[in-house]
Amino acid sequence: MVMDVKEVYQQLEEMMEKEVVLQGWIRNHRKQKEFGFIDFNDGTFFKNVQLVYDQSLSDFEEIQKLRVGASLEVRGKVIESPAKGQAFEIHVLDWKLLGDCPENYPIQPKRHTREFLREQAYLRPRTNLFGAVFRVRSVTAMAIHEYFQSHNYIYVHTPLITTADCEGSDQMFKVTTLDMDHLPKNEGHVDMSKDLFGKQAYITGTGQLHGEAFAMAYKKIYTFGPTFRTENSNTKTHANEFWMIEPEIAFCDLNGLMDIEEEMLKYVVRYVLEHCPEEMDFFDQFVEKGLKEKLNKLLDSSFVRISHHDVVDILKKADVKWEFEPDYGEDIAKEHERYITEYFNSPVFITDWPKDIKAWYMKVNADGKTVAAVDLEVPGAGELMGGSQREEDYDKLMKRMKEMDIDEDTVDWYCNLRRFGGCYHSGFGMGFDRLLMYITGIENIRDVIPFPRTPGNCDY
Amino acid sequence: MVMDVKEVYQQLEEMMEKEVVLQGWIRNHRKQKEFGFIDFNDGTFFKNVQLVYDQSLSDFEEIQKLRVGASLEVRGKVIESPAKGQAFEIHVLDWKLLGDCPENYPIQPKRHTREFLREQAYLRPRTNLFGAVFRVRSVTAMAIHEYFQSHNYIYVHTPLITTADCEGSDQMFKVTTLDMDHLPKNEGHVDMSKDLFGKQAYITGTGQLHGEAFAMAYKKIYTFGPTFRTENSNTKTHANEFWMIEPEIAFCDLNGLMDIEEEMLKYVVRYVLEHCPEEMDFFDQFVEKGLKEKLNKLLDSSFVRISHHDVVDILKKADVKWEFEPDYGEDIAKEHERYITEYFNSPVFITDWPKDIKAWYMKVNADGKTVAAVDLEVPGAGELMGGSQREEDYDKLMKRMKEMDIDEDTVDWYCNLRRFGGCYHSGFGMGFDRLLMYITGIENIRDVIPFPRTPGNCDY
Repeated sequence: MVMDVKEVYQQLEEMMEKEVVLQGWIRNHRKQKEFGFIDFNDGTFFKNVQLVYDQSLSDFEEIQKLRVGASLEVRGKVIESPAKGQAFEIHVLDWKLLGDCPENYPIQPKRHTREFLREQAYLRPRTNLFGAVFRVRSVTAMAIHEYFQSHNYIYVHTPLITTADCEGSDQMFKVTTLDMDHLPKNEGHVDMSKDLFGKQAYITGTGQLHGEAFAMAYKKIYTFGPTFRTENSNTKTHANEFWMIEPEIAFCDLNGLMDIEEEMLKYVVRYVLEHCPEEMDFFDQFVEKGLKEKLNKLLDSSFVRISHHDVVDILKKADVKWEFEPDYGEDIAKEHERYITEYFNSPVFITDWPKDIKAWYMKVNADGKTVAAVDLEVPGAGELMGGSQREEDYDKLMKRMKEMDIDEDTVDWYCNLRRFGGCYHSGFGMGFDRLLMYITGIENIRDVIPFPRTPGNCDY
Repeated sequence: MVMDVKEVYQQLEEMMEKEVVLQGWIRNHRKQKEFGFIDFNDGTFFKNVQLVYDQSLSDFEEIQKLRVGASLEVRGKVIESPAKGQAFEIHVLDWKLLGDCPENYPIQPKRHTREFLREQAYLRPRTNLFGAVFRVRSVTAMAIHEYFQSHNYIYVHTPLITTADCEGSDQMFKVTTLDMDHLPKNEGHVDMSKDLFGKQAYITGTGQLHGEAFAMAYKKIYTFGPTFRTENSNTKTHANEFWMIEPEIAFCDLNGLMDIEEEMLKYVVRYVLEHCPEEMDFFDQFVEKGLKEKLNKLLDSSFVRISHHDVVDILKKADVKWEFEPDYGEDIAKEHERYITEYFNSPVFITDWPKDIKAWYMKVNADGKTVAAVDLEVPGAGELMGGSQREEDYDKLMKRMKEMDIDEDTVDWYCNLRRFGGCYHSGFGMGFDRLLMYITGIENIRDVIPFPRTPGNCDY
């Protein structure tokens, strides 16, 4: 019976002195005259297994020729390792080469730059770093599902293709089945009635509107899926395709929303620390010094809640020469975010933002100037979640849409939710990739996405 | 403290004679002269809660005016119900209207046709039927994650936007940021170098190729995300956007793959039966008579494994007048699928298909005529999964691609996986929406997708 390397580590006590069969890849091979060591990994566990062989093998000369990258089946005996810090090793009894690998294999047991590995996106999960990153990505996704499912949320698959043009179609990719070289025209414009859906469709930038419809049926829902932006932006935190989680909760106000955001984030961080201790140690040591301390501090802290107005007060009083002068009616710049999380030395919920810089569906506060919006700023990563209480009053929503020039036609159903048993409700969005950057310490979003899409980059 | 209705049901013994606060919607309202009954539902549980009120309420006249669909906060005492088949009811102490609902609310407590409700996609999760369908959708998704995560699989987010034109770009939606009315041209063709990615990009029909790359690092991976097809097809089983699960396993042959498919399907079916007993009873009673028996039979059966050749033998010998004559070199028609699952009275794996009707990446068998492919046919639903062992030999793969006229340029990285420690490996795809049709008994794919996209239909 072939075992996963992870199972051997988990059942080590029972496995001692027993035979196992493993299948995996050679990460490193150190040959001596009379014996040799192979660092062997099957991808199910962060740590390698050390294979030890000697001249008792009839095919000793052949095994010595094995190259890094090759795939191998090996039968061996689990034994105590004389090497320090190594729980066991496997004494090879026999082996079989499954897939060879040439000398010019790009992933050699040495330090590669992240830029180089980005060019080898289809091979980089075989390295220690990216192997750890994408396992943590998988485990973090599971943590999110477990949190919401165990709290009676319904997971909703909101549509990717949409005609709801609510956030400005210039930020959305258009999709078409038409022959781009021979588009049907009608009075100078492309005749989209000839397309598969009979009109111009897009791939979506948010599942929120559809999520709200389901929250009005299930009370608590979440989405977790890909979203798209056409931004021609080449920063470390922007990608054109990214995954997002968008919970929406009926009968929930802004304070209730913050409670959920805080509880969820702590749940996920704790889950990853518990389920990926080897990977988190590795990140702590080689990616971001102090990462684990940062995360444990988050678990122990009670997040600060402060209004945008009071944040600006603090910023104005600060003895800092700002690049962007803080202002009560303005957005908060990166330098401000950094200052305020350092000021409180804690994650900070900033609430009640100037309405003119926020979205049309947010509930306007009694002051008429601010909206019941909240951004969560975390030390070292800036904004991690953005949420709001939604405008539940039909007339107020319509007025706001007119003011902000939102086309009502494609979202009339959304507005109708206010007429049919609507209630106060709130929701937030969390960029999954940015959460991963925060959890792993990785600084570039391209390095937490398996095959990242950024302007000019859509290989693979 | 506001509770979820689900929590009240779960903790009923402790809650008896206690006060609770609930928030939810009115599903039905029966008024008598001196008292009244409200069927109340907050979406967290399939069953309603019966609210009972009487003239002891100071606002008795107001509560009597409440309409179906309105949202309500209610404080009341949990008491034993005199009504049959009802574990408890709630005696209303006070209440607050949160959101009113007009008389012309489309979702009234009566039988609506599914066609009508499809037109009300944003409201239909408030009905018993769709409330159950989309909760089962959520729970089934969780079952899939739990199965794979507990078996050491890595969840991979393969890219949606892709330039890998491997299955024929005419079946993929093109995406663009260009102004369709004013496309830049170059020698008569659209100049795609001006687009955001510098070339024509698509939204994908499969994550398999990218999944294989990750299987060569992690041994066992799965994808679970949206996929797209441009088919102009208006059947009950086709949608242009649907969710798919695509596991890929290194060091796994076709027999190993069938073991996994069978174990996974049974795990998921058992999980849903256990986690959604109320919903499954409802489907069994009102959607597909015998549904639960069908599913329990699946759990108890050992799936048949038979080659395509032997299936055609059986079909040829059958005393049936076929619409499509079965043939050794041909695909199997719906009528054949039905016959063969009835013949064995069990799910059937059909293996070793004629290579000319299957995909280019499948491993050609020693006979040179068939490929190591497998389709799982289940009674009453036809094909539920399709998988294969992949061609792991670089030269054979290249030869096959030439034969089948596959453009190597966009998938050279995929082919390279065979050169760098490639190994025998297999994977399958399962349409999530079709799985849901099978589990719920719902016959039209439009009724298991929250906001379905089909030709001419992209509302919401």
